[in-house]
Amino acid sequence: MNFTMEIIITRRPTILDPEGKAVEHALHELGLGNIANVRIGKHVKLIVTADDEEQARAIVEEACRKLLANPVMDDYTITRATGS
Amino acid sequence: MNFTMEIIITRRPTILDPEGKAVEHALHELGLGNIANVRIGKHVKLIVTADDEEQARAIVEEACRKLLANPVMDDYTITRATGS
Repeated sequence: MNFTMEIIITRRPTILDPEGKAVEHALHELGLGNIANVRIGKHVKLIVTADDEEQARAIVEEACRKLLANPVMDDYTITRATGS
Repeated sequence: MNFTMEIIITRRPTILDPEGKAVEHALHELGLGNIANVRIGKHVKLIVTADDEEQARAIVEEACRKLLANPVMDDYTITRATGS
């Protein structure tokens, strides 16, 4: 069975996010001064072939641990895509 | 009032995603061969000061149009962060 899974990977709140700071600055320059605390993370969408959702989640968890997320700096959440 | 908003920015399905392809290849090398169709997008979290949620959404929409998303290549969805 195919499961469409989504992962959101964010830098931990205590880790500086220079990309977010740059975007925030640019937004202020564009007149959007009422935006603050911009944090940029990653969104990964993929299809996993597994017997059930539990196994699909375990595979995605392994992909996060081994490659997608930095265990020191990142947090991640895994969800099953709606309608998949 | 402060609203914590989240934006997910994805390349349109018809647009090639070389980063996603590279990640998919790396995952296969790591033995995770049951993962396919990897697409990498961005996740942006920010705080907007606005009178109500509708205004907050309009501000984020403007930020997406003016800076965050590429109008030709990207799709985006805006949600209010749970618990904000």
